Amino acid sequence: MSNAIKLVEVGPRDGLQNEQAVPTAAKIQLVNDLAEAGVNYIETGAFVSPKWVPQMADSGEVFAGIARHPGVTYAALTPNLKGFEAALAAEANEVAIFGAASEAFSQKNINCSIAASLERFAPVIEAARAANLPVRGYVSCVLGCPYEGEIAPEQVAWVAEKLYQMGCYEISLGDTIGVGTPSKAQRMLEAVASQVPMQHLALHFHNTYGQALANIASCLPMGVRTIDSAVAGLGGCPYAKGASGNVASEDVVYMLDGMGYTTGIDLARLIDAGAAICRTLGHAPRSNVANAELAKQQHA
Amino acid sequence: MSNAIKLVEVGPRDGLQNEQAVPTAAKIQLVNDLAEAGVNYIETGAFVSPKWVPQMADSGEVFAGIARHPGVTYAALTPNLKGFEAALAAEANEVAIFGAASEAFSQKNINCSIAASLERFAPVIEAARAANLPVRGYVSCVLGCPYEGEIAPEQVAWVAEKLYQMGCYEISLGDTIGVGTPSKAQRMLEAVASQVPMQHLALHFHNTYGQALANIASCLPMGVRTIDSAVAGLGGCPYAKGASGNVASEDVVYMLDGMGYTTGIDLARLIDAGAAICRTLGHAPRSNVANAELAKQQHA
Repeated sequence: MSNAIKLVEVGPRDGLQNEQAVPTAAKIQLVNDLAEAGVNYIETGAFVSPKWVPQMADSGEVFAGIARHPGVTYAALTPNLKGFEAALAAEANEVAIFGAASEAFSQKNINCSIAASLERFAPVIEAARAANLPVRGYVSCVLGCPYEGEIAPEQVAWVAEKLYQMGCYEISLGDTIGVGTPSKAQRMLEAVASQVPMQHLALHFHNTYGQALANIASCLPMGVRTIDSAVAGLGGCPYAKGASGNVASEDVVYMLDGMGYTTGIDLARLIDAGAAICRTLGHAPRSNVANAELAKQQHA
Repeated sequence: MSNAIKLVEVGPRDGLQNEQAVPTAAKIQLVNDLAEAGVNYIETGAFVSPKWVPQMADSGEVFAGIARHPGVTYAALTPNLKGFEAALAAEANEVAIFGAASEAFSQKNINCSIAASLERFAPVIEAARAANLPVRGYVSCVLGCPYEGEIAPEQVAWVAEKLYQMGCYEISLGDTIGVGTPSKAQRMLEAVASQVPMQHLALHFHNTYGQALANIASCLPMGVRTIDSAVAGLGGCPYAKGASGNVASEDVVYMLDGMGYTTGIDLARLIDAGAAICRTLGHAPRSNVANAELAKQQHA
């Protein structure tokens, strides 16, 4: 099995979407800093209704302003055809859609059933195929739902398989509220991998309960090789203000480096990229690795 | 293999030793709160020179002030015979001594070689045997040293075996600066377990680089069943001020609960115990689980 890990950096989108408003120039700088640190997949923005997600209203400007690095994929979240067309115009390299493994979450989050949400995504996937853009599919609440509680692994597998069959080349399995623990994460991944080949699966684990790295470490031996994370743990948790959200890219890269996996990412530059955006946000990075290294630098 | 985990709560000692001065009454309250939460092993204080560790100068008063719960072990750190006698007078149920796996750390921390430190502990172990008190042995720097860097697993195994042969019934393997990653932790534990039976080993991992839970999760399948942790992640890291120290007991218990292990601890009461001492300290708990649950309570 390969030791190469694909790290999907979601900080500029999933992260900044849940932070206070950030100047467009700071977003552009963040994306450029990440690319220069060796990150080769960056979820750069979202083309969604500015009424619902004002934090992403400037995604077009962000895409227009970044310095494109060869070999780097700049992706955009596109919930509908209008969003897809904006992403195409912005020259996004990939697009992403999002479903939920929880009916209650689907209703509360996008106001329709899981089945209806999949139907809505069909034209986006079709348009992306016509434009030759790969589509990534997110599944949220794979290890628990803020409304329903427990989610059966088979339910996650069902949604993941649907998205895969519809044409998503990769399914990102999101522990949206960060409640999962290692054995549960393994059981969920096993169920999904029985329906979708492992090389098309990604782990998208939040660190709300501090479990994300343990969950990732426990799933790596099963063969998964794609990990989503956000530099500086950007984003926090919209379901528990003040709690952690996305697992920090710095912590993931540190662990992977130590375990002999390769990411192609320069950890010191990654820490700098996170520290820079956190100065703009006015809070410390939500990354143990970043805080430990920054504290050591300050002491030295 | 049993699913029962012995959790060794080190917050009142290893934790508070690295916090600002805490009133004796708050320490007593913490120990009582922990026992009422179901924690049955509490490192309650240290009998060390108040010149070197003023934070522990009131350990005698703490031992005198706590309400002893049946079945709970109240332990004390005792680096020398004088400290041991004070622990005996305070009616500690167990004592602990500490060695290092790193020569440089041993010199800087206790001003002698590893071999000399072991000689110093011999009379303490002898006195404890005469008094019928079990002795726990700590080994620090098992996954890295702030002065030497890498530490060979064989070096850790050598020190652990020495302490075991000298009469320590349990050897606690400390990642003092929290730099280890899962594969490294497994290799270290494997090396030590080849010299000391697994049931006499404990993991004492710090979370400075966010890796502690991942390391613990990776070592549990190897059969280790004793975990050291500090409620609210008390203590921070003396080698990188502002960074995390001891892994939080709340995060450990949450993970173990989710994995089907048993600790006998009531997580909600454990969170309350940590929140109470953190109000005294004036900072938030360094526990993701505590912060997530406290944020949810505040929101509700």
